[in-house]
Amino acid sequence: MNPIVTLPSNPPRLFSFVGGDRGLWRIRSMDCLVGDPLPQARRLGVFAGEASPGTSLASWKLDGITSNERYVNRAEKAALTAKQEDLHRPAATYAALIPIRKNSAWWTSTQDERRDVLEVQSRHIAIGLRYLPAIARRLHHCRDLTASQPFDFLTWFEYAPADETIFDGLLRELRASAEWAYVDRECDIRLVREVDG
Amino acid sequence: MNPIVTLPSNPPRLFSFVGGDRGLWRIRSMDCLVGDPLPQARRLGVFAGEASPGTSLASWKLDGITSNERYVNRAEKAALTAKQEDLHRPAATYAALIPIRKNSAWWTSTQDERRDVLEVQSRHIAIGLRYLPAIARRLHHCRDLTASQPFDFLTWFEYAPADETIFDGLLRELRASAEWAYVDRECDIRLVREVDG
Repeated sequence: MNPIVTLPSNPPRLFSFVGGDRGLWRIRSMDCLVGDPLPQARRLGVFAGEASPGTSLASWKLDGITSNERYVNRAEKAALTAKQEDLHRPAATYAALIPIRKNSAWWTSTQDERRDVLEVQSRHIAIGLRYLPAIARRLHHCRDLTASQPFDFLTWFEYAPADETIFDGLLRELRASAEWAYVDRECDIRLVREVDG
Repeated sequence: MNPIVTLPSNPPRLFSFVGGDRGLWRIRSMDCLVGDPLPQARRLGVFAGEASPGTSLASWKLDGITSNERYVNRAEKAALTAKQEDLHRPAATYAALIPIRKNSAWWTSTQDERRDVLEVQSRHIAIGLRYLPAIARRLHHCRDLTASQPFDFLTWFEYAPADETIFDGLLRELRASAEWAYVDRECDIRLVREVDG
């Protein structure tokens, strides 16, 4: 065996979000709140692993990878795990993709400074906990992928249509926090799972 | 401008370490202390950015990316910055590449647990500080690159030949620490900067 060859991780950690004319999800709205907008697209496909298509037929492709926890401590992790639900619930036919980039002041901060902003000042983890289990989520990191990416994080949320008002409340709380002063690009893409036709 | 296109970072954050028959560095020794060995190679090339060659002529290629601090706090960062020297010092003709992989117990730990092992129990940052400025280093992360990698970290060290005994002391201290119980693959490649001929 060539000790350099490594198999893709199982379950996959790399995900691609491809905006264009295809995909399981119909884009209901796409707003860019800070920074450059994304090109318009009608539908979104989500691809796991390295199986994502090229971008020749797509408007755009955003890649992200799930990774180890960067801020939560053991007590917070236990609280989150006890309350959160998985993705792909049949009733969760609404989704949102929120790509975010943070500025260099964030990235040159040390770990203790970032934890202070994220949780002590902004209550990011505590706020998120209050919206479980209605809102299921998966965080993808983009910053340490091989090729430079236009965003640092892609967060994918799934919820039932009746919970969209709740979801808006979550975003309103986070966007009002001290942490969001470090966000220099943010888009908000709302989706519905709907067979193409 | 296509808002999806992003330029490579400047200065580059992605580095490739290519073992084979070419490169500025002659491999003096290559030991794998834990886990599978790497294929033998005579020389090593270090490439910045996305300019690394293919692996057709090489024995192996290891990619890593510099990233934000994961553990150091502001006080530690200030102490390190005050004492550390840059890479590429003319007298630092010796180098070492230490690829490391950590096990799943490490990666499923929370941030507070990992900090506790790394610094409270193991004094990783404090130990490293004592070896500055003789040993210059650059840490590369591999775990969140697009393609799965055989290691999680690549640390590159440069020092003068007279300081190799000191460098061995640094490794001895770290390898005896609680943190190293989480290391499930480690190689130790020693190099000298020497024109090919």
